[in-house]
Amino acid sequence: MLDKTLSLNGKIWFETPDGKLLGHGRVELLERIQQSGSLRQAALQMKMSYRQAWDMINYMNEHFGAPVVISHRGGKGGGSAELTEKGLKAIEQFKLFQQKFQEFLKTNSPLIQI
Amino acid sequence: MLDKTLSLNGKIWFETPDGKLLGHGRVELLERIQQSGSLRQAALQMKMSYRQAWDMINYMNEHFGAPVVISHRGGKGGGSAELTEKGLKAIEQFKLFQQKFQEFLKTNSPLIQI
Repeated sequence: MLDKTLSLNGKIWFETPDGKLLGHGRVELLERIQQSGSLRQAALQMKMSYRQAWDMINYMNEHFGAPVVISHRGGKGGGSAELTEKGLKAIEQFKLFQQKFQEFLKTNSPLIQI
Repeated sequence: MLDKTLSLNGKIWFETPDGKLLGHGRVELLERIQQSGSLRQAALQMKMSYRQAWDMINYMNEHFGAPVVISHRGGKGGGSAELTEKGLKAIEQFKLFQQKFQEFLKTNSPLIQI
């Protein structure tokens, strides 16, 4: 339709030669762990299984060069989890590049000529 | 692992308020139609059904403001298809922004500090 505006959109992620390491979804998982102090709670909020969430965290812990989340099993409430300095830095960096990317999209979107 | 390099990657697409309109896959479909002169051949090469390919083209024809592909049914070989000026322009524009995006990734990737 002629009255609809064409715009540029996309997504970015951090990767290693092994594949995707950190994108929008995993950043959300990390943030929810940070806020709730619980991997189980974070998984629940994102409607994923504990196992799925744990696998993601485990993958990141192995591929970031150092753990991004440390979990403490057992105790009242079924254990807790917290982000390491590395994990906090990963979120901060992703958001920085996400912001740059949004600026890229905003700058280029009006230039589409079809 | 510490010895693995973290890099920035991602993908872009053109969209309307209705959703994605043109990304890497559809550009490939258009290019294969252009090269083969046949929607059926292009679909076959991309391992998609004729119906899937036709639906994609139909969606683009409706949302680009003017057709990107014109098909001629019947005749020897089962009809032909060709890109319109609009279709060629869409490919050209997508590749232009894809190139800008690759430059964005290349510039920013070495700046990741985690």
